[in-house]
Amino acid sequence: MSELHFYTHPMSRGRIARWMLEELGEPYETHFVAYGPEMKSHTYRRINPMGKVPAIRHGETIVTECAAICAYLADAFPAAGLAPEPRQRGDYYRWMFFVAGPLEAASTNRSLKVEVPLDLKGMVGYGSFETVMDTLEIALTDREFVAGDRFSAADVYVGAHIGWGLQFGSIERRPVFETYFAGLSARPAYQRARRLDDTAAAEMQKTPS
Amino acid sequence: MSELHFYTHPMSRGRIARWMLEELGEPYETHFVAYGPEMKSHTYRRINPMGKVPAIRHGETIVTECAAICAYLADAFPAAGLAPEPRQRGDYYRWMFFVAGPLEAASTNRSLKVEVPLDLKGMVGYGSFETVMDTLEIALTDREFVAGDRFSAADVYVGAHIGWGLQFGSIERRPVFETYFAGLSARPAYQRARRLDDTAAAEMQKTPS
Repeated sequence: MSELHFYTHPMSRGRIARWMLEELGEPYETHFVAYGPEMKSHTYRRINPMGKVPAIRHGETIVTECAAICAYLADAFPAAGLAPEPRQRGDYYRWMFFVAGPLEAASTNRSLKVEVPLDLKGMVGYGSFETVMDTLEIALTDREFVAGDRFSAADVYVGAHIGWGLQFGSIERRPVFETYFAGLSARPAYQRARRLDDTAAAEMQKTPS
Repeated sequence: MSELHFYTHPMSRGRIARWMLEELGEPYETHFVAYGPEMKSHTYRRINPMGKVPAIRHGETIVTECAAICAYLADAFPAAGLAPEPRQRGDYYRWMFFVAGPLEAASTNRSLKVEVPLDLKGMVGYGSFETVMDTLEIALTDREFVAGDRFSAADVYVGAHIGWGLQFGSIERRPVFETYFAGLSARPAYQRARRLDDTAAAEMQKTPS
């Protein structure tokens, strides 16, 4: 029996955590949680009071938030080599928190068509969607990986956002983003993760719930 | 000469990074960056293309985003004991990313009076402001520290947001939040950081720029 449990829905940000789990190569058990009453149930809220997927349980430890799941797993299973040495984590943390904070907020508010009044611009941490795109482009220009010269959990998190954003239009189609993601999406773990969730999603559509 | 450089404005989220630097106890050099042309200048954008403070430079490494600065410094200076062991970082990452993501986004959009249409609620990662407050309360109930049984960089980041939020009304006045922050704000490093930035802010108001 696995000590690593994964709570997800195949059509959710849980795809990010799935990719990370596949990169890790440790056995894990998947628990699909349905949107609606099950995800908002008392039982599931003991895992995540936000009533959201994904979440993982590793022994007694529960982790929610996709970026936290990536960072936690990389540290908890050091043999997989998915985190830089602790003293060399400048870019690693910088770009993970950049995507979890400004990028997520800016693209959500772009989808919601939020206009920030001039007098409140200083209060909004992401500034503007354009500045966020420009900053991300600078971070990835001439870089195969976002942190150092090897693949890390930061590439899973940043890369998954870029791949998702390119597909659904929440990120601009800039050549730097397309090149970066093309390299990542060829990885066997990415391909396995996608197949697992695509298959699960197709099964769900066939089965009346 | 210090190898640790701090770019900030005394009336900004830079106060979070200042507190972290004071907890660290390493020498650092402060560079105040004025809002407006200086913060948006080509020179400063080489440090942070977002044109925002805070940022730190440590040798060749530049780190932006408050949470990333806290996490980076804790790992780069392990002697300060401000990060849990790598295998025990579930809560540490979980609550740092929770505050950087859902909490920041939910409180920004509350200030902007954004109403999320029903059909887009699933797309918004923070769900609702109420759920974010409830989740944070659960995380801090009967806890002196947010990650494990000792103070860490996660308390600087989560605590600074709560302190700021209680002061400016962006976080609800719940007893759990007030108790948690009361414990943290008594720390000598927090007091020193506040004095340094209060003094700098007062100086700036006296001097015509």
